[in-house]
Amino acid sequence: MPYSVAVSGASGYAGGEVLRLLAEHPDVQIRTVTAHTSAGRPLIEHQPHLRSLAGLTLRETTPEVLAGHDIVVLALPHGQSAQYTDALAEVPLVIDAGADHRLTDSADWDRFYGGAHSEAWTYGVPELPADGGKQRDALVGATRIAAPGCNASTVSLSVAPGVAAGVIDASDIVSVLAVGPSGAGKSLKTNLLAAEILGSANPYAVGGTHRHIPEIRQALVAAGADAAAVRVSFTPVLVPMARGILATTSAPIAPGTTDAQIRDAWEAAYDGEPFVHLLPAGDFPRTADVIGANTALMGLAVDRDANRVVVVTAVDNLVKGTAGAAVQSMNLALGLPETRGLSVNGVAP
Amino acid sequence: MPYSVAVSGASGYAGGEVLRLLAEHPDVQIRTVTAHTSAGRPLIEHQPHLRSLAGLTLRETTPEVLAGHDIVVLALPHGQSAQYTDALAEVPLVIDAGADHRLTDSADWDRFYGGAHSEAWTYGVPELPADGGKQRDALVGATRIAAPGCNASTVSLSVAPGVAAGVIDASDIVSVLAVGPSGAGKSLKTNLLAAEILGSANPYAVGGTHRHIPEIRQALVAAGADAAAVRVSFTPVLVPMARGILATTSAPIAPGTTDAQIRDAWEAAYDGEPFVHLLPAGDFPRTADVIGANTALMGLAVDRDANRVVVVTAVDNLVKGTAGAAVQSMNLALGLPETRGLSVNGVAP
Amino acid sequence: MPYSVAVSGASGYAGGEVLRLLAEHPDVQIRTVTAHTSAGRPLIEHQPHLRSLAGLTLRETTPEVLAGHDIVVLALPHGQSAQYTDALAEVPLVIDAGADHRLTDSADWDRFYGGAHSEAWTYGVPELPADGGKQRDALVGATRIAAPGCNASTVSLSVAPGVAAGVIDASDIVSVLAVGPSGAGKSLKTNLLAAEILGSANPYAVGGTHRHIPEIRQALVAAGADAAAVRVSFTPVLVPMARGILATTSAPIAPGTTDAQIRDAWEAAYDGEPFVHLLPAGDFPRTADVIGANTALMGLAVDRDANRVVVVTAVDNLVKGTAGAAVQSMNLALGLPETRGLSVNGVAP
Amino acid sequence: MPYSVAVSGASGYAGGEVLRLLAEHPDVQIRTVTAHTSAGRPLIEHQPHLRSLAGLTLRETTPEVLAGHDIVVLALPHGQSAQYTDALAEVPLVIDAGADHRLTDSADWDRFYGGAHSEAWTYGVPELPADGGKQRDALVGATRIAAPGCNASTVSLSVAPGVAAGVIDASDIVSVLAVGPSGAGKSLKTNLLAAEILGSANPYAVGGTHRHIPEIRQALVAAGADAAAVRVSFTPVLVPMARGILATTSAPIAPGTTDAQIRDAWEAAYDGEPFVHLLPAGDFPRTADVIGANTALMGLAVDRDANRVVVVTAVDNLVKGTAGAAVQSMNLALGLPETRGLSVNGVAP
Repeated sequence: MPYSVAVSGASGYAGGEVLRLLAEHPDVQIRTVTAHTSAGRPLIEHQPHLRSLAGLTLRETTPEVLAGHDIVVLALPHGQSAQYTDALAEVPLVIDAGADHRLTDSADWDRFYGGAHSEAWTYGVPELPADGGKQRDALVGATRIAAPGCNASTVSLSVAPGVAAGVIDASDIVSVLAVGPSGAGKSLKTNLLAAEILGSANPYAVGGTHRHIPEIRQALVAAGADAAAVRVSFTPVLVPMARGILATTSAPIAPGTTDAQIRDAWEAAYDGEPFVHLLPAGDFPRTADVIGANTALMGLAVDRDANRVVVVTAVDNLVKGTAGAAVQSMNLALGLPETRGLSVNGVAP
Repeated sequence: MPYSVAVSGASGYAGGEVLRLLAEHPDVQIRTVTAHTSAGRPLIEHQPHLRSLAGLTLRETTPEVLAGHDIVVLALPHGQSAQYTDALAEVPLVIDAGADHRLTDSADWDRFYGGAHSEAWTYGVPELPADGGKQRDALVGATRIAAPGCNASTVSLSVAPGVAAGVIDASDIVSVLAVGPSGAGKSLKTNLLAAEILGSANPYAVGGTHRHIPEIRQALVAAGADAAAVRVSFTPVLVPMARGILATTSAPIAPGTTDAQIRDAWEAAYDGEPFVHLLPAGDFPRTADVIGANTALMGLAVDRDANRVVVVTAVDNLVKGTAGAAVQSMNLALGLPETRGLSVNGVAP
Repeated sequence: MPYSVAVSGASGYAGGEVLRLLAEHPDVQIRTVTAHTSAGRPLIEHQPHLRSLAGLTLRETTPEVLAGHDIVVLALPHGQSAQYTDALAEVPLVIDAGADHRLTDSADWDRFYGGAHSEAWTYGVPELPADGGKQRDALVGATRIAAPGCNASTVSLSVAPGVAAGVIDASDIVSVLAVGPSGAGKSLKTNLLAAEILGSANPYAVGGTHRHIPEIRQALVAAGADAAAVRVSFTPVLVPMARGILATTSAPIAPGTTDAQIRDAWEAAYDGEPFVHLLPAGDFPRTADVIGANTALMGLAVDRDANRVVVVTAVDNLVKGTAGAAVQSMNLALGLPETRGLSVNGVAP
Repeated sequence: MPYSVAVSGASGYAGGEVLRLLAEHPDVQIRTVTAHTSAGRPLIEHQPHLRSLAGLTLRETTPEVLAGHDIVVLALPHGQSAQYTDALAEVPLVIDAGADHRLTDSADWDRFYGGAHSEAWTYGVPELPADGGKQRDALVGATRIAAPGCNASTVSLSVAPGVAAGVIDASDIVSVLAVGPSGAGKSLKTNLLAAEILGSANPYAVGGTHRHIPEIRQALVAAGADAAAVRVSFTPVLVPMARGILATTSAPIAPGTTDAQIRDAWEAAYDGEPFVHLLPAGDFPRTADVIGANTALMGLAVDRDANRVVVVTAVDNLVKGTAGAAVQSMNLALGLPETRGLSVNGVAP
């Protein structure tokens, strides 16, 4: 019998992507979809691409409506998940696609988000080195999971192997990301209007203010970085593509390290991973190649002139960055095959 | 009486932009346009947006055709300009929009371009600090000018003030650029097809191989950097916009430097400049705001957590990056007002 | 001494484009810019591309603020212009970029807009055949001008010559337009978000409901069509480009008409026009070629199999469609050269 | 045991999409992929998004290589399929994604394609009304199938129900299509370069010259139109999206027909169809909602003022327009469930 699932925030982009993936998942049944102002309307009005779910109607996001499912996925604006936690105590598996349960450090939460800080849940990026093993180990059988921030997990995956292996210096990581506006959600803001973004590259949160920075630091510390030393310069740039993140991340080469040692660190870290791939030397990924897929493609160069390792990583922010990470983590939590319901092939061109 | 001008490479993107600007310039008359395979065809077939030049016909690019003008602009593929140099000895002003006359160091030329190395001409970025003054000084009255590489000048303008003032460390500059495909020219390559670029962010020349790197180093040395120490990690990313460069460039804060000292370096460098503007603290530019304009807009943040100064600069690669730089330099060379024929306002949205 | 100008709605897209054009116009001085919620803020915050106007501050849109100028341009949401009309009685020239003064027929106004119907002003499309001559005649010396709807004028220009010459049948005109979202204004609507429009073609106002339909009918009747017979099927499709309209308009060939007679109708109508051009047979325009320009490019085919004349017309919706039409009409009204301050060359690629 | 498949033209866009779909199909095994100049190279070099097929190497496209499979899919340039037909006589099922076997009329072939005309195969659009039933009937058990032209099938599906029911007049069909450049294939042509298409709408094949016109006529005649009377004005416009077709098609209302009769014609035609959906009155589709899906979404309006029925249809040109049509037809031919391996949900935003 399939697991019953409720998805809140079902009228938004992240919620819609969770539904797109779960609609193809053989082991779950989407029983309930909820929203806020759109409650009472057919889901298809807000997600006209989800034809197979045309029969669903959006219900109010209340604890009562969400309770009673095997799995609840929360895709709510940041700060809104905590109010449901107590009421969902009986739900076997809760996955939060928002930020509320990602950060372990209250000071980070206060500085970058503010408001009451909730406890951290198991972080939903299985491939990250963590505590000497991989984060996957913690996800097997987990009951409360925090899906990652899309930019954060992309950058963390890009450099964690090098940090863990000690072949790069985590104290001067620089990452610049080309990102599509779907990552900002279906928010009515002037800077997200099509006329503002078409034909333009628009930076935001420049200079160390982006909320994903503490999440990256936390992941790199889990991978073995010295908490006092890790430093990340992080700049996202909105570009005219609906989906996708292309993160160009670099860090100084650790003294005395050979090119082979560097490449080996990433190859060893991701060898056998179904969803994270290091491309052959000289190859670099495009975001088009991962659209719709739960795949992270990565290219690596050692630039001796600049004394930096440069890693370019492409993900679909809504899949591997959010909803795919949630489903992959869900599979692990439930003891299902990790790849169930997830595609490795992108929709290109 | 207006100066007579010949533009070679007139069927391409850079040549077309030179023509668009010169068509509005009150002191020049476009007398000759030349091309290679398209010689004999009306210019308007290849540049259907240049209605005011509908009467011109493309001629063969030969020394004879180009000679006899007051000004010759070469917009040819790299390595092809030198063959015309001798034949144009009598032409009072020659501006090369290609790379042939940019680099002073033959070793750089050999490594990044190859083939015979031509002598360096006066570099066409007036606002750059150079030799204790500004590059403008060298351009006044110049007779041979090398228009800059679009990416190179964008990065150089971004960090040269900080290098010159000693407030940043030039030994670990990191720049990642979102760039439109017009910078690659009208070349028939699969990776430049619309279906490859629409909806995707595509990196290229990753890991220190881009030809603009030695040009940046050279400009920063002219600005005062130690030639042995300057290092640049440089990664361009093609994004789906026809024009524009958004360069995110950062460098370590020099020890003991205050935020005010840092901002002052850029403010002092570009104070009074008609085409290069530092935005107020907290503001960052978008490429849309400089499309069609000879303007470079720049935002600066001091990120103490990351210990880096981050500069985000927007230019139109075809204008301030190439053709506008050529016209601005031409104005200086001829003793005309520097802003003649150039717009500071972008075409947005 | 230049004419003093006030522009209301200066924080929006249409107002911004009026300012971009007037900033380059040698005979006017932009003295006042007004807005609604943004009053008191620097103009540059809302129009960061207009560097040459960085010194202007937005004032409240009130009759008092607008009065006392030689020229007032209203770029307000539909239905808001009329409240200023009386107060501006002393202003020598008022140009409304909104719809309030376009329609002569109150029944059309009631059906497509609603609310109080204002009197029609002189329609600002000089090239249209009208009353046996051209609309230009009415604009010379006009004091109250209604700038056209961007889609309406594009379609009207496309077929008016054929209607006037009787070579096409105005009772079955079909027009489908690819349009950029800037035409919809800087409105916070979900369907105008970048993530909704990137990578997608989105129709709207399908089936005869678009407000520009009566404006087209009115223009064609002025060109000579039988008011009882003219019928237009009109479908706009939002596509992922910030600016531009490409209208594909067709109508049945009038019985007994030769191909030469058809082409002659358009050639004669636009011969010598500075801003409207019929391309050679076999050529069709792209919107890229008119971006930033006050140019309408038109291609025409006679399809005998389908028994239709097909006209494809490209304009920049913000220039020839709105602000350029306003400035061109202003030039005529003031007795200035019609082309003053307007470019015929597009910014491409 | 799965059916073995060979796909020729596997380095192109259509071939790549066939592979993307077949890779998820549970009843087939992709055994052979072939190409022309790229033979010998890994498939992943040309289709970097198809990670699950990373082990495949491109072979030469020869009859010998293709023979010996249960299914052969030809995705070759037009005119090249016929040379393989004889050699594949023993292959149980051959599907041609090219045009070679679509047209029944040699005169049409001569006029629109030229060269030797091959026999017509069973046309791969199951939902089309045909011969009093549906085209599906002919596909069940078929052994030679011609996948449709993407534009042609979109237009045919748009109006065939109304033609079959006699509620519209097939003698004056007008269709204008916004199309993405992937439909033009991975061809090195200047007009397909990204810089030419970004930010622009570009018409082509205007005035009755597009090769899909006879294919539409043929489908409408099969649906019941009078061959002598059917006329189609057809204009495709390239817009800046990688994939997708939005066809706006209209035809005169048949005299005496009610709105309900009109809507009923389409509802009855597509009732129960898994992949073709008529949206509720007042709703119209966007291409984003069908990207990656085998779905055609359709909205219909009756415009009494214009006396036209307007149908707007969205498809993914590479899926429902080409590769999805091939797989759906394959399923029917093999007696598999028609929806096997095909998604109805789009990847949006």
